[in-house]
Amino acid sequence: MNNFIYCTPTKVIFGREIEPQIGPTLKKYGATRVLIHYGGGSVKKTGLFDKVTASLDSAGLSWVELGGVEPNPKLSFIHQGIELCRKEKVDFILAVGGGSVIDSSKAIGVGLATGNDPWQYASTGTHPEDDQVFPVGVVLTLAAAGSEMSNSDVITNDLVTPWVKQGITSETVRPIVAFMNPENTFTVSKFQTGCGIVDIMMHTMERYFLGTPDCDLTERLAEGLLIAVRDAGRRAIADPNDYEARATLMWASSLSHNDLTGCGKPRYFPVHKLEHPVSALHDRVSHGAGLSVLFPAWAKFILERDIDVMKFAQLANRVWGVEMNYDHPERTAAQGIETMKAYFHEIGMPVTLAELGLKPEDYEAIINLTTKNGTATVKSYLPLGKEEIRAIYKLAE
Amino acid sequence: MNNFIYCTPTKVIFGREIEPQIGPTLKKYGATRVLIHYGGGSVKKTGLFDKVTASLDSAGLSWVELGGVEPNPKLSFIHQGIELCRKEKVDFILAVGGGSVIDSSKAIGVGLATGNDPWQYASTGTHPEDDQVFPVGVVLTLAAAGSEMSNSDVITNDLVTPWVKQGITSETVRPIVAFMNPENTFTVSKFQTGCGIVDIMMHTMERYFLGTPDCDLTERLAEGLLIAVRDAGRRAIADPNDYEARATLMWASSLSHNDLTGCGKPRYFPVHKLEHPVSALHDRVSHGAGLSVLFPAWAKFILERDIDVMKFAQLANRVWGVEMNYDHPERTAAQGIETMKAYFHEIGMPVTLAELGLKPEDYEAIINLTTKNGTATVKSYLPLGKEEIRAIYKLAE
Repeated sequence: MNNFIYCTPTKVIFGREIEPQIGPTLKKYGATRVLIHYGGGSVKKTGLFDKVTASLDSAGLSWVELGGVEPNPKLSFIHQGIELCRKEKVDFILAVGGGSVIDSSKAIGVGLATGNDPWQYASTGTHPEDDQVFPVGVVLTLAAAGSEMSNSDVITNDLVTPWVKQGITSETVRPIVAFMNPENTFTVSKFQTGCGIVDIMMHTMERYFLGTPDCDLTERLAEGLLIAVRDAGRRAIADPNDYEARATLMWASSLSHNDLTGCGKPRYFPVHKLEHPVSALHDRVSHGAGLSVLFPAWAKFILERDIDVMKFAQLANRVWGVEMNYDHPERTAAQGIETMKAYFHEIGMPVTLAELGLKPEDYEAIINLTTKNGTATVKSYLPLGKEEIRAIYKLAE
Repeated sequence: MNNFIYCTPTKVIFGREIEPQIGPTLKKYGATRVLIHYGGGSVKKTGLFDKVTASLDSAGLSWVELGGVEPNPKLSFIHQGIELCRKEKVDFILAVGGGSVIDSSKAIGVGLATGNDPWQYASTGTHPEDDQVFPVGVVLTLAAAGSEMSNSDVITNDLVTPWVKQGITSETVRPIVAFMNPENTFTVSKFQTGCGIVDIMMHTMERYFLGTPDCDLTERLAEGLLIAVRDAGRRAIADPNDYEARATLMWASSLSHNDLTGCGKPRYFPVHKLEHPVSALHDRVSHGAGLSVLFPAWAKFILERDIDVMKFAQLANRVWGVEMNYDHPERTAAQGIETMKAYFHEIGMPVTLAELGLKPEDYEAIINLTTKNGTATVKSYLPLGKEEIRAIYKLAE
């Protein structure tokens, strides 16, 4: 087990009918003028927006709004947000939405707190100073990215060609408070629910592998979370209004990415690094769908090289219910990947690049972006350069 | 699943050779003059005390010390601590020890932050105002109570006869930082290690039962934690210097009591409420040993009344490896309790009142204290009054 630091101060207010607490809570955090940041406007159709503003109004907080955040939030729009907040003297950003809205809010916060372009940090892997924090709160409407409790912020630079998707990892972007009412996810489509399930599982599984050999507690927690998500996922797809299933997915989204499931392990996230260039170049590709195609292929690629077989077999056995073959754990491991793929299909997720709408002639451009034209590799059990990524794509066809 | 609030801001710095970070970290939190609070002096023998003071010194922080905290920390001694801190103008309390030292530190902090006797809160179930916080840090030397990351503080009033043991539950007593080096628990005796294992399991199991029916994620996490503790417990008892086992126990102690394993569930802790009067009247009884006797008896008492059988059977199956008997889940449940008792014995823990050194003639005084002479009951599946507690004791003989 590696040394680690764990600190997740985000206050989670979870459950039914919690919206009236939004205004008073933000006031406690010193908010006076709030930016309500949201996406395509479904929050207005569902009535959530009105609940939020009613709570802010009754707490005596003024607010401005900025809707229109797109999936894979864009730098150009983040710049608009920073400008608006400066002009309107906003002192608190409230993200009402899912991962894209939260990440857009976080990036606006970085711009306001540092006076710098947030891309400066995303592009260089640097991060703001500890005290350069702008308060961001979340009213969550999608169980997926876990951004509501994480120190991650992923944005897409649409001011360069080709677009580039990069992340800022910093304690300064961890939200101060998250309001999580599972009922606010009842209207999420089956496809987006599936993408969320995959994203939650991936945040857990990306931490599960590439670890030191002895991290039993962290792995047991990860497995428990994966089992709960597996079962709740099926239920939420079958009945979108299943409160308990939606609640499990929502809380799991936070726990899968607040670092609980990574304590004592390194943080590489190779499959995320393979996926980001895909959705950067093909904006219509949902992050979760990209992951559900690439993770099984990556796992097969690693297993073909006889690496960490027992860990893959352990996951297959404990989470995917495959009987352990102690003489041939590689068979257990392989069967686990097939069971996982079958599960992804069952919840409506793609498992091939073709299902994702990508053609072989699209590959090379993505691989070039992933490897910076062959000058960089993705850190994994072995470094993934052009050749290795081509092999992974082959396994994902 | 019930609504819940989850907020665990304690910063955990975990692993080997972390002691040099103590001084600089406390300085960041604004400390200038630190009370080093500790127990019987083993921290001086092991050299930990010197590492702590070296780190404070090199960060330019001055300090005073107060050793001598006893198990079941006493109010009279807490009063001395409050007086010393006032006289010495201490602005940060650093607990170097286990649960008793931490709880003594927290109570001193309550006294300093509120200007009131901490017993005022413990005795009435009230708590300080949100902003009445005195910063407490922890250098942990015992994996057991989980107080290093919890909002609990249990103290014993030795200024009344008979002594009374009560808790304060408040966010104001959650430590600001915990330094957790598993090597600092290598010297813990087998018996105290066993007590710790039981305490960790109990903090998890007390939350596991009496819940709403649908808390799958929370239960899966609890089960994962229990399995990891079960296995690490065996290893730590067999080899006290097994770093990975000690690390698992240490991190589990925090996670078992920071509320992660209770999200969406009510908080009753009936077995703790049965145990506190035992160790209040019989000061030599270790909290963990008291729990390992009373929990199985409480569980049997509940099962005999056909209550929540499937939940007990689920735990037996998933954690204690008992095959599920779907026709007779009560048999699965009962076998689970026996397996747990065998495990407690295996790690050197008592499972009967006699092993605890209590005689039948001792019972009535404890039962009177537990029930305030028959005027109060302990909240459980059914209220536990004198008669019910006598029945539980009978099952613990």
